[in-house]
Amino acid sequence: MNNNPSELRDELIFKLGNFSEKLGLGKAMGQLYVALYINSEPLSLADLAQICRMSKGNASINIRRLERWGAVKKSWGHNHRRDYYQANRDILKFGAKHLTDVLQNILKEGTVLLEEANEKIESFEDRDISNSEKELIGNYRTSIKDLRLLLDNGKYLIDSIDFGDFWRPE
Amino acid sequence: MNNNPSELRDELIFKLGNFSEKLGLGKAMGQLYVALYINSEPLSLADLAQICRMSKGNASINIRRLERWGAVKKSWGHNHRRDYYQANRDILKFGAKHLTDVLQNILKEGTVLLEEANEKIESFEDRDISNSEKELIGNYRTSIKDLRLLLDNGKYLIDSIDFGDFWRPE
Repeated sequence: MNNNPSELRDELIFKLGNFSEKLGLGKAMGQLYVALYINSEPLSLADLAQICRMSKGNASINIRRLERWGAVKKSWGHNHRRDYYQANRDILKFGAKHLTDVLQNILKEGTVLLEEANEKIESFEDRDISNSEKELIGNYRTSIKDLRLLLDNGKYLIDSIDFGDFWRPE
Repeated sequence: MNNNPSELRDELIFKLGNFSEKLGLGKAMGQLYVALYINSEPLSLADLAQICRMSKGNASINIRRLERWGAVKKSWGHNHRRDYYQANRDILKFGAKHLTDVLQNILKEGTVLLEEANEKIESFEDRDISNSEKELIGNYRTSIKDLRLLLDNGKYLIDSIDFGDFWRPE
């Protein structure tokens, strides 16, 4: 049982913020996002640091990460003198966008690995090796080719997703 | 430049196996899977442990994890006296199945958290709090309701994916 609304708020920020770690957000990002999400009004960096019990430096770094995700944006509509932030409540859209970015990086890294593997396989092409060794190399070549096809299909799929203008300026 | 096919094999297992860690497989699982994937013939647990330079116990634990994923299966077609394994080469299908399981668990955990949060919010219902506090609690209630809707939609989406009989016995 919480004694007052601010205790409840602290608990929501702590528990839901930590949970969001499973979704790929760090704890600090999760807590800042939840703090903004459950608040109907925009909050300043100083407010956020105080509410989430973190340094202003830490809050600032992580709020900028959230901005890059499209999860929060600066709010200018209230005649604020300092930077105020508000949450993008469309979690599905910015989440999908972020997942896409992560997958694209993984696919890029995988492609480099497979290209390196392929070069090594090709280097056996003109060498004096036994027939059984040739068969092994042939198996490796086929496997790398199959994996490359998988990555290319994955890249094609991901590139074809259109998230549109998901974070429209008001 | 690799001197012989088995050096190349070791390098493929090591590099691709470690890469698969980014996809949610542990290193040991990744290495075992790659060892089976690039080999045209099934391999025994003893072969796998030797090739991947791990203990038979470690190989056994991780091969069973891969079996649960549907990533490898026992091979009985070669008159083997011991357990032999082969890779399921349809990475996309067993990967999607695994991702679904992970997401379902996350959604289940999230639902529990939101239910707990809701109970705490409801406990303020009959209490003597100020109007501004009532407004705060109202904001929290709306936010939790929105999040719950998001989870329910997510669950509905995931449950509606049909992976069919993706690992058919031969």
